[in-house]
Amino acid sequence: MSERSAPKTSPGNFFEDFRLGLEIRHATPRTLTTGDVALYNGLFGARFAVQSSDAFARAIGYPRAPLDDLLVFHMVFGKTVPDISLNAVANLGYADCRFLKAVYPGDTLHSVSEVIGLKENSNRKTGIVYVRSRGFDQDGAAVLDYVRWVMVRKRAEASPAPDEKVPELPKSVDVAKLGAACPPIRPAAYDTVLSGSSHRFGDYKTGERIDHLDGITVEEAEHQIATRLYQNTARIHFNQFAESKGRFGRRLIYGGHAISLARALTFNGLGNAFHVAAINGGRHVAPLFAGCTVFAWSEVLASAELPGRKDVGALRLRTVATKDRGCADFPFKTGDEYDPAVILDLDYWVLLPR
Amino acid sequence: MSERSAPKTSPGNFFEDFRLGLEIRHATPRTLTTGDVALYNGLFGARFAVQSSDAFARAIGYPRAPLDDLLVFHMVFGKTVPDISLNAVANLGYADCRFLKAVYPGDTLHSVSEVIGLKENSNRKTGIVYVRSRGFDQDGAAVLDYVRWVMVRKRAEASPAPDEKVPELPKSVDVAKLGAACPPIRPAAYDTVLSGSSHRFGDYKTGERIDHLDGITVEEAEHQIATRLYQNTARIHFNQFAESKGRFGRRLIYGGHAISLARALTFNGLGNAFHVAAINGGRHVAPLFAGCTVFAWSEVLASAELPGRKDVGALRLRTVATKDRGCADFPFKTGDEYDPAVILDLDYWVLLPR
Amino acid sequence: MSERSAPKTSPGNFFEDFRLGLEIRHATPRTLTTGDVALYNGLFGARFAVQSSDAFARAIGYPRAPLDDLLVFHMVFGKTVPDISLNAVANLGYADCRFLKAVYPGDTLHSVSEVIGLKENSNRKTGIVYVRSRGFDQDGAAVLDYVRWVMVRKRAEASPAPDEKVPELPKSVDVAKLGAACPPIRPAAYDTVLSGSSHRFGDYKTGERIDHLDGITVEEAEHQIATRLYQNTARIHFNQFAESKGRFGRRLIYGGHAISLARALTFNGLGNAFHVAAINGGRHVAPLFAGCTVFAWSEVLASAELPGRKDVGALRLRTVATKDRGCADFPFKTGDEYDPAVILDLDYWVLLPR
Repeated sequence: MSERSAPKTSPGNFFEDFRLGLEIRHATPRTLTTGDVALYNGLFGARFAVQSSDAFARAIGYPRAPLDDLLVFHMVFGKTVPDISLNAVANLGYADCRFLKAVYPGDTLHSVSEVIGLKENSNRKTGIVYVRSRGFDQDGAAVLDYVRWVMVRKRAEASPAPDEKVPELPKSVDVAKLGAACPPIRPAAYDTVLSGSSHRFGDYKTGERIDHLDGITVEEAEHQIATRLYQNTARIHFNQFAESKGRFGRRLIYGGHAISLARALTFNGLGNAFHVAAINGGRHVAPLFAGCTVFAWSEVLASAELPGRKDVGALRLRTVATKDRGCADFPFKTGDEYDPAVILDLDYWVLLPR
Repeated sequence: MSERSAPKTSPGNFFEDFRLGLEIRHATPRTLTTGDVALYNGLFGARFAVQSSDAFARAIGYPRAPLDDLLVFHMVFGKTVPDISLNAVANLGYADCRFLKAVYPGDTLHSVSEVIGLKENSNRKTGIVYVRSRGFDQDGAAVLDYVRWVMVRKRAEASPAPDEKVPELPKSVDVAKLGAACPPIRPAAYDTVLSGSSHRFGDYKTGERIDHLDGITVEEAEHQIATRLYQNTARIHFNQFAESKGRFGRRLIYGGHAISLARALTFNGLGNAFHVAAINGGRHVAPLFAGCTVFAWSEVLASAELPGRKDVGALRLRTVATKDRGCADFPFKTGDEYDPAVILDLDYWVLLPR
Repeated sequence: MSERSAPKTSPGNFFEDFRLGLEIRHATPRTLTTGDVALYNGLFGARFAVQSSDAFARAIGYPRAPLDDLLVFHMVFGKTVPDISLNAVANLGYADCRFLKAVYPGDTLHSVSEVIGLKENSNRKTGIVYVRSRGFDQDGAAVLDYVRWVMVRKRAEASPAPDEKVPELPKSVDVAKLGAACPPIRPAAYDTVLSGSSHRFGDYKTGERIDHLDGITVEEAEHQIATRLYQNTARIHFNQFAESKGRFGRRLIYGGHAISLARALTFNGLGNAFHVAAINGGRHVAPLFAGCTVFAWSEVLASAELPGRKDVGALRLRTVATKDRGCADFPFKTGDEYDPAVILDLDYWVLLPR
């Protein structure tokens, strides 16, 4: 791939460089540590007790506190960037994202992607690349599996278009596939005073909406530190010199940063939603910049028991994040148009103790 | 409590929600790690050898380097915020704060508070809540015990006033109560070259004043990362959108940040004051904002031997921190009025090797 | 030393305080942890696989992932600042810097310096101090050895000049001295897909120049956190109140920050240059400030086999870093004058697998 690029450096892949079925093993493997956890906590202020406390995690059945699911997601995702999205115009969506195994400090992750779809855009300047990416630990066990699609620049407008293939993707991860990364837990040992919320799985109803109340302002140093921590190399997040002449005139914040902020905000209202089991779909509706304050609200889209499990239940949530606008009135869409303050529309499954 | 709040989210407690004797077990338990230590070091530049070096700590009798005392304080304090001070107008003071047990990486802390005093203000809009908060480790051993009082908003002006009780608090922690968190040390093994100061307990005299010389400028990202690390959720520190219309027009820095900055600055002049044994009282005299540069000076208020201990001695210090003003002339008070540059007036006990 | 200074605080040493042969054991010993690694990664986005992954490091022969060489350098260097360069006008250069032993999380480092040269400047206000500094681990084994020279203010213009001695320093570290900190590795087990570059030692040619393409914008919070992490106390990096009236009107970024940024940028083009074995010389050509974007390019100055080793080879590199200017045309010097965008000119040896 990239045979026209400079011999030693990588300018990233262009649309022409991808072909259906291509498998890419990504650099750089990464050992995750309690240091990464501390930095993640400092950047997002996560408060879910299972991830915060070894003692709490052990009491319910984990060997120790697992890593935050989204930290795992960002690490696996970050590794795919140099090969998949260095020349991306936009990160269009996620689907079929499943957390498959709990990850603990000391585990080493690497990522592999397969090209599962290609579609040139009618302007012939860009095309959409669909990849299924997987994260594996040091033993080769899959910890994460997801599809994303990105709009990638072509190297040359004249390059011939590949055969078009748009993969069929599930609108939502099937309930039977949830929970692989959550060991059997003892719900009776789950202390809802220490966890900060008295509401268990059964206390949430489909259609229920929750304004998460709090807001977090993002600083340039914060999103840069987070995104570098994941070894995500997308240039638009780090290079003000280039971006000052770019589309926005400034650095764009990694979309995953907004997801982590939204997840942290949901603690106030969903304090026992201790595990993100799957992401059904996600859309970065508008860009986020430093100096903005992020708010969020959630709606319970569905509630489901997990086949064969009495310990935990699953809620399908839509979490909507906004910038510089509170969520007391649940801003979302007017017709097909998102409220101008909305930056993120995330559809995902969480697990709560029963 | 808070039965009028939204069903799932917590708007925090108002003055009416507190009653004398109420005990609150706080969320979220937190395992402290070397990751937290690294971040704390990066944010404050602590240089006390005992906390910096496992080898130094072992040489004098610790099993390994203990966590910085103030990091423990902030972690225990942070947990109390969602229940005690989310609707606080002001954090008025601390008293009788004692460090009871050394905390090491891997320990898990949680916090419990008891309401020990209540006093409605004459404006009927706010009241003062006195709480005794304690931090416990995973074995249930107390590691920290302190009283603080905060001015909390009432939900409704018409709510009846509770019976008034203002607890009697010691002006200073008794010398006999100091040192529980400091194991017996070998003063002869305490290397004053490696520690960065040749001055031991006996070298300081009551009345001695020390300008700590250095200044540290605070950035928004720094205090936000620190305060989130402690899982302190006070909104005024994080939400520029709301604060732009608030009292100061900007985010207020967590008072504890100023305490940690001041403590770090005191290294230059008090390099062997390796352990904060107690805080007698503290007052956040004026707010601190990002962009300000913090300076500090200290006065030795008293010097005391610890009953039964020949290894360490205690100094009672007043450390005064200022913003955007050096401390060569020891700025403090004119009559009852603090110098306008003063932001912190802290009265505490430290231990030094004899 | 510093007998005129205030009794308890240290204003740092002035030129008169140094004498030839003086040996200074520096405070504060420091245990390095995976927390420091995480913060370093978050600040610089390092991607070299050996330092990133325990699994990768073990596969080739390390017991686990070693610490980034420059993190070790900054930690050892930071300790020397309070004694050597607190009153420095400028950090003039480095020479003969050799990494002697791999450092792992849990190791405790301290630093010792010897004054090896002194030369008063003709203005009689400053003088140049040459020191050889060494970092040692908890077992007393040397991990780093380097010379630097700094221009230090005199306390008084009238002070007599010392005997002048300018040490002879090697222009380049001898190849026979490289590699002590790199255990024997198994080049066949070095996975160049996971490492992110297919280019091994033999693929680089003397005279080859590489533009590293990417740029990183620096924020005040970032360089302050990094520099405090190293316990580097140089005031010019932290005190905006003082610097607003100083030479630049703002905080100067620690020169080592630019070195780490440049090293991180070189990954794109030198992805298998996994170990910095030695620094031959380095010059901070111009100051770096927050808000600037750093770019870098490198030239292969020489290529050398290591005596007795078939596993790795050494490249001597010049890496030039610029601010707010890309490096596609390799900006460097016109005659003796550096391009105004150049901030760093670093000459060093790296090891790559054969």
